[in-house]
Amino acid sequence: MGAAKGKMSRRDFLKTTGSAAVAGITLSGLMWSPAEAAPLPKKWEETYDIVIIGSGFAGLAAAYEAKKAGASVVVFEKMKTPGGNSIINGGVVAAAGSPLQEKAGIKDSPELLLQDMLRAGLNLNYVELAREVAYQSNETVQWTIKELGVEYKDKLTQEGGHSVPRMYSTHNQSGSAIVTKLLAKLKDLGVTPRTQCFLTQIYRDKDGRVKGVQIRDGYVFPKENSGKTKNIRAKKAVILATGGFGADVDFRRAQDPRLDETVDTTNQPGATAEALKEAIRIGCTPIQLSWIQLGPWGSPDEKGMGLNPFFAQLCCAMYGLWIDTKTGKRFVNELADRKIRADAILRVGNKCIAFTDAHGFAIGEKLIAEAIPKLLERGVVKKYETLEDMAKAYDIPLEPLKETIEKWNKSVLAGKDEEWGRYLQKDQKPLGPGPYYASRLMPKVHHCMGGIRINTKAQAIDMFNNKPIAGLYAAGEVTGGVHGAVRLGSCATLDCLVFGRIAGQNAAKETPWC
Amino acid sequence: MGAAKGKMSRRDFLKTTGSAAVAGITLSGLMWSPAEAAPLPKKWEETYDIVIIGSGFAGLAAAYEAKKAGASVVVFEKMKTPGGNSIINGGVVAAAGSPLQEKAGIKDSPELLLQDMLRAGLNLNYVELAREVAYQSNETVQWTIKELGVEYKDKLTQEGGHSVPRMYSTHNQSGSAIVTKLLAKLKDLGVTPRTQCFLTQIYRDKDGRVKGVQIRDGYVFPKENSGKTKNIRAKKAVILATGGFGADVDFRRAQDPRLDETVDTTNQPGATAEALKEAIRIGCTPIQLSWIQLGPWGSPDEKGMGLNPFFAQLCCAMYGLWIDTKTGKRFVNELADRKIRADAILRVGNKCIAFTDAHGFAIGEKLIAEAIPKLLERGVVKKYETLEDMAKAYDIPLEPLKETIEKWNKSVLAGKDEEWGRYLQKDQKPLGPGPYYASRLMPKVHHCMGGIRINTKAQAIDMFNNKPIAGLYAAGEVTGGVHGAVRLGSCATLDCLVFGRIAGQNAAKETPWC
Repeated sequence: MGAAKGKMSRRDFLKTTGSAAVAGITLSGLMWSPAEAAPLPKKWEETYDIVIIGSGFAGLAAAYEAKKAGASVVVFEKMKTPGGNSIINGGVVAAAGSPLQEKAGIKDSPELLLQDMLRAGLNLNYVELAREVAYQSNETVQWTIKELGVEYKDKLTQEGGHSVPRMYSTHNQSGSAIVTKLLAKLKDLGVTPRTQCFLTQIYRDKDGRVKGVQIRDGYVFPKENSGKTKNIRAKKAVILATGGFGADVDFRRAQDPRLDETVDTTNQPGATAEALKEAIRIGCTPIQLSWIQLGPWGSPDEKGMGLNPFFAQLCCAMYGLWIDTKTGKRFVNELADRKIRADAILRVGNKCIAFTDAHGFAIGEKLIAEAIPKLLERGVVKKYETLEDMAKAYDIPLEPLKETIEKWNKSVLAGKDEEWGRYLQKDQKPLGPGPYYASRLMPKVHHCMGGIRINTKAQAIDMFNNKPIAGLYAAGEVTGGVHGAVRLGSCATLDCLVFGRIAGQNAAKETPWC
Repeated sequence: MGAAKGKMSRRDFLKTTGSAAVAGITLSGLMWSPAEAAPLPKKWEETYDIVIIGSGFAGLAAAYEAKKAGASVVVFEKMKTPGGNSIINGGVVAAAGSPLQEKAGIKDSPELLLQDMLRAGLNLNYVELAREVAYQSNETVQWTIKELGVEYKDKLTQEGGHSVPRMYSTHNQSGSAIVTKLLAKLKDLGVTPRTQCFLTQIYRDKDGRVKGVQIRDGYVFPKENSGKTKNIRAKKAVILATGGFGADVDFRRAQDPRLDETVDTTNQPGATAEALKEAIRIGCTPIQLSWIQLGPWGSPDEKGMGLNPFFAQLCCAMYGLWIDTKTGKRFVNELADRKIRADAILRVGNKCIAFTDAHGFAIGEKLIAEAIPKLLERGVVKKYETLEDMAKAYDIPLEPLKETIEKWNKSVLAGKDEEWGRYLQKDQKPLGPGPYYASRLMPKVHHCMGGIRINTKAQAIDMFNNKPIAGLYAAGEVTGGVHGAVRLGSCATLDCLVFGRIAGQNAAKETPWC
């Protein structure tokens, strides 16, 4: 099995395997061994209730909740600027059962979002973690609006794998809109992330409790020995919110040997695995590390995340088509989950384009107004007056391409995509005669589904006894289990905010060990 | 991507992604920290050149090579008897380009076996490790014959995912035929595995070298504190050959939440994760742990491995059919890899049978003579005089079943399975009029593809610096990477023997640290 083909929930699996068959031994296993504990430092340079490592969504949300609950808080960030991947992400957050959905007449529910997550996740998800995220989705987005003052556009969008449009988009189409609000709120509360502070050690004492960390203050990424060593005491807890390892070539290819240095990533350079490894070293449970997501909407004509994801998704996957240039045909449901689409692009030989017409482009000009001129200017998106011009530019056989468009237009008019089962937008229109706008597609390493194991309280779980590690919490991409095999777009920000808040709230309730 | 749908080799992937896109940072990462080293014991109770943990194929093959190379060797086994899962396995070993193939006119090559392994492995395989196994396959099987005196049947069989029949089967259709020969050879050399000796700690010193282990001598599985603690010095190396964790419910469900205690396993109760976790704790790299294989040919009518795998594979997958009882139709290529078949069984609701006719049964009576009477006696396999009787017994719609058989028989006569593309045997015959023999199918946890990372020298690789850990080797199911996402049947024994031997040979060449 490993990953069943998506149709089987854990409940179904149990149903079909029956209760008769019971086997396997449950061992508590050896305890994490205090003999291996690093001795606590003789001197703590600084002391806080709560020490947070990482300043993306999860770390900042944790800091905000912990500080509001009255704890003293410090946030360490290894890079020169706070925000991690969160500050460069696409600024989309899923909310199931939201006011915007009600306004648009879109029926949705947290349970439907959960089922979407489990289907994409091939049921490898920790269901109880995914449920927290799905059921707190609308509340969390409303919290960003009411509590933080984040501004969103008034039109919902749809990423692949979601049954319905349910994505809120920040006004600037970037996670920075949320990060900057969180930073401002934290500043008001007296907390400013300490940048260039790199985690080098987590102190787990002989009693099994985490009691602090060692950092390098003044660290210059990626120079290992830069900065000055300091020991920081955490009276209540340490919260790991250090993100994924999409930019860590060595670690990601250890898990998936195909993802070597020739494969581009959307991640910032600091998305590396040092903190994850340190967590494993002190007894955290590594889970599902080999599930690494490629974003299907990357472009070979720009580096990193770039801007093409917006165009390829919002203008094309929602309002245009994705085409295999060798055949002139569609090759995937353009709104399937990211794995299905990335696999499909690679399978047809990475010769695919996304394109749309004047209608889709006009929506783009409204939704992602700042991005469109840049995309054209950089040549990532190109404009073609006629279908013939576009076919010629990408060497697409013209007649099959015409047939593809005719077929699609009939589907739109009929209200059903018989060929691929794609969700049709309420303002979907048949593709017009031209002009057309197109970009090339190339999958890029985007998100690490695996990480360390947590429970619904965001407590890190000990590999040796399957119990929470006292004094250690984790949230966001450094953790695994929420998304199973495949994460849905717009669920990462949600995951980070939901579990970041949970971690901050629960850490603040801990009894200090000193 | 995570796991691309099998069509894309790493080479293809690179080809399609192009050389233009280069991103991601390669960090050497922090070193494994000597501050965390357990202090070496003041007293070593025993000293050997090489300390081997585990007494299955890998451990015994390592011991044999190391001893032959002149090293002093000890083998520790935690259970009451040696052999681990190896002694209860099906006794099949793949050999590509073997004398038996030549005799049967079957064209094969190590490269074809390698390609089969990569295809099944969804290209998550460490290609260099898989290559060692494939290219040493025939030599290794011949070594078991010439050097160890293992006896095999003279008919090759075929497990799912292999392009051609290439499986040697031991005369008693059990891995015990290999284990007992290895044990006898080792006894002649003065090495007898020490049973009930449980690994509790690996000593990795401040210099990063592994120097010995702590065991509990007189351990009674699974009582944690049974036995007496002893410190064992390894002057040259420790070799981990501790197998998989298929019977460790806590650890396997941490990696794949579906695989809880209600799911049966083919593994012996000692197939648990303690040694794997200890290896991770001292800095080994955990890879691909969430890829856990279900054997598709298990039966709900017997516990554990049982005997049905032989019948369902050799009599039915090769000479009969697998049927969805709800529809009366085939639902998968009966010779597809294990994941494809297990997924298919679960997808159609676990209501499947394997059946064969007099011809397939006669082959079974010859190939697995001892198993057949037991299967009938235990009611795992049932005999039906007519198709009508069989249909009635499993509530299969009769007409579709008849059509299925007619269609299959036409395919056999035409020499091509148009419907599912199954390989046809040289002695394949259309299914006869009766009697029929049938068994129910239920996937069971069978093999852990993931484990700790090794290189082609069988050296364990440090998670922190991606370099070999001095003094530590590993082989067999405790390692990951050889099989990628999905292991092919008959490649586990091969993997264990190939890398067990490599580990033993290389460990013997180490310079003693004391």
